[in-house]
Amino acid sequence: MEDVGTGDVTTLSTVPADATTEGYIYAKENGVLAGIFVAQRVFQILDPGITFEDRKVDGDQIVDADILAVVLGPARTILTGERVALNLLQRMSGIATRTARLNELLKGYKTEVVDTRKTLPGLRMLEKYAVRVGGGKNHRFGLYDGVLIKDNHIKIAGGVKSAVALAKAEAPHTMKIEVEVENLVGVNEALKAGADIIMLDNMDPADVQEAVKIVNRRALVEVSGGISEDNVVEYAKAGVDLISVGALTHSVKALDISLDIQKIKVRSVTR
Amino acid sequence: MEDVGTGDVTTLSTVPADATTEGYIYAKENGVLAGIFVAQRVFQILDPGITFEDRKVDGDQIVDADILAVVLGPARTILTGERVALNLLQRMSGIATRTARLNELLKGYKTEVVDTRKTLPGLRMLEKYAVRVGGGKNHRFGLYDGVLIKDNHIKIAGGVKSAVALAKAEAPHTMKIEVEVENLVGVNEALKAGADIIMLDNMDPADVQEAVKIVNRRALVEVSGGISEDNVVEYAKAGVDLISVGALTHSVKALDISLDIQKIKVRSVTR
Amino acid sequence: MEDVGTGDVTTLSTVPADATTEGYIYAKENGVLAGIFVAQRVFQILDPGITFEDRKVDGDQIVDADILAVVLGPARTILTGERVALNLLQRMSGIATRTARLNELLKGYKTEVVDTRKTLPGLRMLEKYAVRVGGGKNHRFGLYDGVLIKDNHIKIAGGVKSAVALAKAEAPHTMKIEVEVENLVGVNEALKAGADIIMLDNMDPADVQEAVKIVNRRALVEVSGGISEDNVVEYAKAGVDLISVGALTHSVKALDISLDIQKIKVRSVTR
Amino acid sequence: MEDVGTGDVTTLSTVPADATTEGYIYAKENGVLAGIFVAQRVFQILDPGITFEDRKVDGDQIVDADILAVVLGPARTILTGERVALNLLQRMSGIATRTARLNELLKGYKTEVVDTRKTLPGLRMLEKYAVRVGGGKNHRFGLYDGVLIKDNHIKIAGGVKSAVALAKAEAPHTMKIEVEVENLVGVNEALKAGADIIMLDNMDPADVQEAVKIVNRRALVEVSGGISEDNVVEYAKAGVDLISVGALTHSVKALDISLDIQKIKVRSVTR
Amino acid sequence: MEDVGTGDVTTLSTVPADATTEGYIYAKENGVLAGIFVAQRVFQILDPGITFEDRKVDGDQIVDADILAVVLGPARTILTGERVALNLLQRMSGIATRTARLNELLKGYKTEVVDTRKTLPGLRMLEKYAVRVGGGKNHRFGLYDGVLIKDNHIKIAGGVKSAVALAKAEAPHTMKIEVEVENLVGVNEALKAGADIIMLDNMDPADVQEAVKIVNRRALVEVSGGISEDNVVEYAKAGVDLISVGALTHSVKALDISLDIQKIKVRSVTR
Amino acid sequence: MEDVGTGDVTTLSTVPADATTEGYIYAKENGVLAGIFVAQRVFQILDPGITFEDRKVDGDQIVDADILAVVLGPARTILTGERVALNLLQRMSGIATRTARLNELLKGYKTEVVDTRKTLPGLRMLEKYAVRVGGGKNHRFGLYDGVLIKDNHIKIAGGVKSAVALAKAEAPHTMKIEVEVENLVGVNEALKAGADIIMLDNMDPADVQEAVKIVNRRALVEVSGGISEDNVVEYAKAGVDLISVGALTHSVKALDISLDIQKIKVRSVTR
Repeated sequence: MEDVGTGDVTTLSTVPADATTEGYIYAKENGVLAGIFVAQRVFQILDPGITFEDRKVDGDQIVDADILAVVLGPARTILTGERVALNLLQRMSGIATRTARLNELLKGYKTEVVDTRKTLPGLRMLEKYAVRVGGGKNHRFGLYDGVLIKDNHIKIAGGVKSAVALAKAEAPHTMKIEVEVENLVGVNEALKAGADIIMLDNMDPADVQEAVKIVNRRALVEVSGGISEDNVVEYAKAGVDLISVGALTHSVKALDISLDIQKIKVRSVTR
Repeated sequence: MEDVGTGDVTTLSTVPADATTEGYIYAKENGVLAGIFVAQRVFQILDPGITFEDRKVDGDQIVDADILAVVLGPARTILTGERVALNLLQRMSGIATRTARLNELLKGYKTEVVDTRKTLPGLRMLEKYAVRVGGGKNHRFGLYDGVLIKDNHIKIAGGVKSAVALAKAEAPHTMKIEVEVENLVGVNEALKAGADIIMLDNMDPADVQEAVKIVNRRALVEVSGGISEDNVVEYAKAGVDLISVGALTHSVKALDISLDIQKIKVRSVTR
Repeated sequence: MEDVGTGDVTTLSTVPADATTEGYIYAKENGVLAGIFVAQRVFQILDPGITFEDRKVDGDQIVDADILAVVLGPARTILTGERVALNLLQRMSGIATRTARLNELLKGYKTEVVDTRKTLPGLRMLEKYAVRVGGGKNHRFGLYDGVLIKDNHIKIAGGVKSAVALAKAEAPHTMKIEVEVENLVGVNEALKAGADIIMLDNMDPADVQEAVKIVNRRALVEVSGGISEDNVVEYAKAGVDLISVGALTHSVKALDISLDIQKIKVRSVTR
Repeated sequence: MEDVGTGDVTTLSTVPADATTEGYIYAKENGVLAGIFVAQRVFQILDPGITFEDRKVDGDQIVDADILAVVLGPARTILTGERVALNLLQRMSGIATRTARLNELLKGYKTEVVDTRKTLPGLRMLEKYAVRVGGGKNHRFGLYDGVLIKDNHIKIAGGVKSAVALAKAEAPHTMKIEVEVENLVGVNEALKAGADIIMLDNMDPADVQEAVKIVNRRALVEVSGGISEDNVVEYAKAGVDLISVGALTHSVKALDISLDIQKIKVRSVTR
Repeated sequence: MEDVGTGDVTTLSTVPADATTEGYIYAKENGVLAGIFVAQRVFQILDPGITFEDRKVDGDQIVDADILAVVLGPARTILTGERVALNLLQRMSGIATRTARLNELLKGYKTEVVDTRKTLPGLRMLEKYAVRVGGGKNHRFGLYDGVLIKDNHIKIAGGVKSAVALAKAEAPHTMKIEVEVENLVGVNEALKAGADIIMLDNMDPADVQEAVKIVNRRALVEVSGGISEDNVVEYAKAGVDLISVGALTHSVKALDISLDIQKIKVRSVTR
Repeated sequence: MEDVGTGDVTTLSTVPADATTEGYIYAKENGVLAGIFVAQRVFQILDPGITFEDRKVDGDQIVDADILAVVLGPARTILTGERVALNLLQRMSGIATRTARLNELLKGYKTEVVDTRKTLPGLRMLEKYAVRVGGGKNHRFGLYDGVLIKDNHIKIAGGVKSAVALAKAEAPHTMKIEVEVENLVGVNEALKAGADIIMLDNMDPADVQEAVKIVNRRALVEVSGGISEDNVVEYAKAGVDLISVGALTHSVKALDISLDIQKIKVRSVTR
């Protein structure tokens, strides 16, 4: 682990090897829990024999002061793993909490919140999992498992029609073809070209509503760009199938979670 | 790369292998640039022969619409690398921008902004670099390169005095001993125990001022906990040497940066 | 490289370090070439400065005695890399050759040959590439980039209807839903459940023809199981869209390709 | 695992996390089993707690419909691991089956079947193991653990005599020196040079018999090139010690093996 | 493991798979034991189920013929792991033994023995651990966790004063600043510049004594260069805090330790 | 690199990024140089653009004050790479020097010095290379490329005869069979069993001479155990083919080599 490196100097010098203790992971803020098994894994990597009892599970609504888990074992292990465990737990819970808030607003609409590829290198799996915990759906996991034809692809391919035709010919037959458009002209082009999903990029709710009418169930409609808690309902009312929100993962506010230690037992003083 | 996996299906099917183009990386928001060499590296990993001209360098104040870099080369490479390059550039610039804002507020004071270990796994080096670009200083890089005795260590070691004594005996003689305390009693204990740095955790400005007086240059004074742009100046006025801010890295707002493609050249139509 | 390990004892002892030579890679059998760049890469990993001139490119029809490439450089490098380069080239060309033979038989039909996941660990990318070189199409690359509901999934999910419904709800909206069925009852169930692709497993050409009629363009039709050069045309006549053939990759006959050395130059005798 | 990547979309969506089941691995063809522990390992990598009971062991003669192993555990794990486990098991059993067939033909002769380095990258250990299971012997594992002076080495070293002398001087004293020759002149040269093993490359049985006489136990005699089930006995009759067969590993016909699921238990419907 | 590679040919051919045995690791020389858990780990990597009973623990004084540990388990595992286990154990015990000898000489003085970065790539953690076992202290673990300004840095920075000032400004505030000097002028410069630790490089005991007087507790004093068992006490008498000795790790005499096998049990003769 | 970790704090703070310099690697002791290309590689890993001019090549006799190489490039790179480059160069040259000394003593005898597997984990290739540079020969590289039947194998196999028979049957036919014996009885047993090489373990020169007579060229004779510069000639006189010396690699005295910096150029003062 990047954090431990050649050893936790502080803990190795101040905590006896045989001291055992109980660490309480608790919330200092309200939100949705995500990543409790990741916290567990961090401690188990340091010491496979450690005991980790979760008191809350992923997806639970948690409130300030809730105990989320109890870690029992060598005090050294618990102190050394604390920061990495919390860093991940706080970020994942931050993502789940924000997703859940958007999801709550969409109650009663068929529209679903989806994430994007605006995640951090190495953490995509965990961040997309946190979105699911918060009630969102995942968009494609990477460039390899879905086709999304954007502005720049269209420019190079020489138009929507030829871009879609090329993708249909070359991509595996198991993938749908999604096309990003910026206006109603684009919607018509994409439909005619045979797109399976049409992404409306940065269009206002009025245009979106019009687009939904034009498409008329012949493709899935997704909106993207500049969507927040303030305007998400307007887009849902316009009848779109999916709303993708980059900020779910690119601008996360960590949920405040902490660890406190109790009931220390030291068998001997020598180390 | 996690994002590319078995290949960028969209680009491979819609963009000819011999199409070359120019990609412009530009700002869509004001802030401080950080990570331009990381963006360059992403494209060079995909294609070592690509040309990447930076127009701004790390630490530059950038404004909406500024061109930050121009990437010239195979259109496939540019489109495939875009998202990973931007994800990192946006986060690093977000960190630098926030650090710079705090730093600006501290102008005229001797107090320095420092980061914490509340970074994401695998990204610590880049995130701490972004803090430096924003004018902040780095605290220790991990558990291995600095001693920071916290509440939990003190509990187990049986008091500040014995914790500091243990650390002095066991830690390499090249490291200073930092102790976290929560009140003025703790400040006195830490001083008496011979701490080189005293971290005041979640203490209000008045108590902090009192602590600075007590310490009277015999140790460095660092404050931590609940510090934001709203109250950072009060702490500086209290005379502390260092202010550490976890939110610099744990709750980042990505700076909005984008890539646009121009001047496409396709040598042939066959692929 | 697994083959080189701690060094090529024979070559290191019998070939002077400064001997240079020309290695001719040539065919000893007719077929379709695939993997010439992989052979090049093997030699370049051993010595980045080596010269590799391809005389044929991937997809070329080659005949016995054709020279495929010339490798110029240190004799040691050429001899040490020979076996690994040929092992890959022979297997990939074997795959392309067999795919091309099936493809040839399907000329005039709309039906396309596709591969399966019956590939060898670590070699999937290369084997699927060889199928494309031979004129085939790739099915999904792994379990992560396409949905294929098989017999066993249906058993557990409690029927075709619920299996498809679950997949539609949980899988990314960018993926089509493919269902494997074993008879005409299954075809009807899959259609009703809303499958995008129906795979007919081990059905005879007569039933397949009937299935194509039932589906009537409402889904793609793929056949699989027991298909060889002897019966592939019958299936094409039945009007299916895709024929998947596991033997393309699980039972490959390597194409016979060899390397011969000429024009040896040794600058000195000492080593 | 290359096959699982970011997750088995089909299984994760259609199979509940708490469904358990029994998977039967069974033969669909007669042959020799090899690799049952590799199949076990695949499932255990996915879930260390899974139960894998082998009903047949490596080296067993198996017949169509034989149950080879029973896997008990989470249905998700069994379905996700199925393909990789079978891909390896089928190839390894294919190799063992072919080796055993050659071995059977050689019954009563002192001659032994050996493999070559014509294996696939990353799989050599498993493929050579399968040869042993089929009753064959392994030739050297790579370029590092045996000396085999071929045509190309002889050309560069300036003749058989100097090539052997160089190898004797430079190679560790623990290795025998093997020389490949193409005719009886070569046999005499190799003998005179002091070769420990002489490999007769692409020589017909009559010449081979003559070579064996010339050598007269002063070196081991190995034949190689163009040997199949049709002519292997003739070579054995000629009195050679070893017959090496590249096709054992470079052109494998996978043995048909499958997995079927039974006795599904789902504790709950929620997932 | 580099030593085992594709398998221990000797053991696999001469030792039955089901033979179990007891291996005794014993000393053939007097010294201090270090690394017994590393030996244990080597055997457990080869076979997690092996039994390893230590009869001596790290730091114990051992004498010729002492049994250090008993390994019980498969004879193959014990024979295959023997060399790697002993190689590490012998080197680590060699380091601990030499450190302990120096330490013994310093009894009664406040001076401590410390190591350097003159360790072998990949083994630093183990070698520095062995120094601690021998009663020494560790200097910094690498270039990243401590500041040591040497001759060459001073030349480039333009003098001791500016070098120290730069380090104080740029290095984390948690690290002390150590400066290497070669004479008394340097001592004064370093003190004035504010160095926390002063390293006296290759100075004779008389000058060292003078330096200690000049420093007068305002910094830690470390000596380095040309220190052996012959002169170490003189330096201690001169009143230095620390003596660093490169030879502790760069010129190690392995402690003679061996493994002997007894009580072999073979369940069957077949293999 | 283990040594650099998160960065060379001292160099990064005291040396400007644009300072360039010349580093002289020079000898401080007489000996044989080995590893100059390894030193070069260390600097090139840190900065591929650095210039490294060797003034001496591996195998050269070097004397105190000889310049071995000049490194030109960024001062930061040179200072940061210095320690790792020297650590390896000093050890490898130490090994070559000692081997050369033994070799010198054996001038005029046919006997060759060989190494053992008593090397450090991860460094075997470099250490065995250094032995060759010093004029020695390499024994097997690991357990995988040579057969050496020792005391413990013989005990388990039930005697020399059966151990050799087993090895002949199971090991690849390309390897010779070496047997370790402790007395003349063992020599006779090994010869009768058909050993290709007989290793005399810890036998005195008189017995060794007798053994050589008994063997009478029917096998190679190697001696091992307790051989140093004091008695090596006696063994050579006894007529053995090979002398293996563990201390060549397990108890190395590093050759003293250092790096000095000159001609510093700093383009600017800002960093």
